[in-house]
Amino acid sequence: MSKHALSPRDLILARARIDGQIRTTPVLTAAAVDEVAGARLFFKCEQLQLTGSFKLRGASNALALLPPGGPGVATHSSGNHGAALACAATRLGLPAHIAVPENAPAFKLENMRRHGGQVHPCPATQQGREQKLAELLQQGLVAIPPYDDERIIAGQASVALELFDQLADLDDLVVPVGGGGLISGCALAAAFTAGGPRVIGVEPLGANDTQRSIAAGIRVENHQPETLADGLRALVGQLNFSIIQKHVHDLLSVDEEGIIAAMLMIWRELKQLVEPSAAVGLAGVLAHRERFAGRRVGIVLTGGNVDPLSLLPLLT
Amino acid sequence: MSKHALSPRDLILARARIDGQIRTTPVLTAAAVDEVAGARLFFKCEQLQLTGSFKLRGASNALALLPPGGPGVATHSSGNHGAALACAATRLGLPAHIAVPENAPAFKLENMRRHGGQVHPCPATQQGREQKLAELLQQGLVAIPPYDDERIIAGQASVALELFDQLADLDDLVVPVGGGGLISGCALAAAFTAGGPRVIGVEPLGANDTQRSIAAGIRVENHQPETLADGLRALVGQLNFSIIQKHVHDLLSVDEEGIIAAMLMIWRELKQLVEPSAAVGLAGVLAHRERFAGRRVGIVLTGGNVDPLSLLPLLT
Repeated sequence: MSKHALSPRDLILARARIDGQIRTTPVLTAAAVDEVAGARLFFKCEQLQLTGSFKLRGASNALALLPPGGPGVATHSSGNHGAALACAATRLGLPAHIAVPENAPAFKLENMRRHGGQVHPCPATQQGREQKLAELLQQGLVAIPPYDDERIIAGQASVALELFDQLADLDDLVVPVGGGGLISGCALAAAFTAGGPRVIGVEPLGANDTQRSIAAGIRVENHQPETLADGLRALVGQLNFSIIQKHVHDLLSVDEEGIIAAMLMIWRELKQLVEPSAAVGLAGVLAHRERFAGRRVGIVLTGGNVDPLSLLPLLT
Repeated sequence: MSKHALSPRDLILARARIDGQIRTTPVLTAAAVDEVAGARLFFKCEQLQLTGSFKLRGASNALALLPPGGPGVATHSSGNHGAALACAATRLGLPAHIAVPENAPAFKLENMRRHGGQVHPCPATQQGREQKLAELLQQGLVAIPPYDDERIIAGQASVALELFDQLADLDDLVVPVGGGGLISGCALAAAFTAGGPRVIGVEPLGANDTQRSIAAGIRVENHQPETLADGLRALVGQLNFSIIQKHVHDLLSVDEEGIIAAMLMIWRELKQLVEPSAAVGLAGVLAHRERFAGRRVGIVLTGGNVDPLSLLPLLT
């Protein structure tokens, strides 16, 4: 079985390594949302991260650990890891090639391209992604996986370390779960922090492979994701799953209606144009109010790469 | 003619008076927008102010200067000053009555009500607003004007004073102009600050009463505003006009298409859900690129009280 060997020192070094390459993102609150939730909510704004998502943290850490030069990098991504990898690679003068499922949103394709990424469409399945990536790697490119990778996990952990510096006394930290890179980093950061918060993951009901894997005690393989939250369609990684099993307090799931309602609430009350995937954390809190009542809850807003005009027809 | 008697000390005292009642709002940047503009742009995020607009600054200052107790306050407002006044009055245990033009957006009506405001619909004309307010004042309420008032102007000036603390070396400060409360405060703050930026106002072409007034040398009276930027439909105030005449470097106007394009750019690139009025500053910079080329430009995002779903039909 996959076992990670990440220590507190690895997380601290990763954070120091990417300092100056990423933004320290603000934490926002809204009394009207707190009132609805019956809890004190603190939104960590990774939609304001460079490239529009937290993914730049892991990508920057992974690329900083590569030997200099080389032929370039490759990955598969529905958009945010791809844009982050392209941005970090371009800074180092390296080409970045990205296998992109053909149902990825146009906004994210454009975001990858303008950060210098070379986009390669592939079927919208886990197998399709991995096959296209294998083709790219045959050209001699170096693989930078989107989540199932210690360097990526250590980089994403900086979201939580940074948040703990901003707010010392959180009871809970709520994180959307796709491939599991962000939540495994955050869960390690919380576990390594004295008095750290409970870490709770939230998945769309239509992509609840992690919850099913936890229930089964082993990572499930059957996974036909169906959700508007395009950033959360990937199958949880092996390494990520083992960290989640050990360090994540609980996993919740939310339906599509709940995701859309939470997204609109974030748009209207926080004035933050987040993408559907980023609303899954708040959706989880609102669908399970009793678990969070009266608590101080951090929620990661993971990204804002969405064209609101393309979504609006789905919302009305 | 109206002459203001505001000194640097008045502005500093107003800022100190409202400290703790308002948020210090962040400044955001986006490389993609800078590239389009050909300038370095710094967005002062008053859509993240409590009540969702800068208006809480002036309202809080005005209410802090009232004698304690009293029968309550009244004003006319298309929404943001009304919500701000309601919020500040509710904190003091006072009722707030607001004359609201009948074409004000539903989102803003709701925002006034949930901050404790009592809404009184009136015709959507300057005369209609003033007549309804006069009726309210006959009930013994104290008028807190939305912009043509030294206390309001001094409070709004804190937007600029705060921004100058955050960024010492701006070349220009670009401010949307409706009644002129914000720009007159900002222009005084800049004039009172050694090495302060040029202050430039921007109006919708369909509500360019200030520009026409400057050209005429006297405040125009004929004003039939027609613009999506509902926060900028008011006629410029007397006091505001006299300050603008003296301290504002230039006034620009922008068409509706430019306002919508700028708003969508702010949504997509800054991930900030601002209202149409708030996009007028960026629209002005993009419509007059040559004036700002290579400069460091502050732009006030004035508010975010908008329901994106209600705007949809206008945008697609």
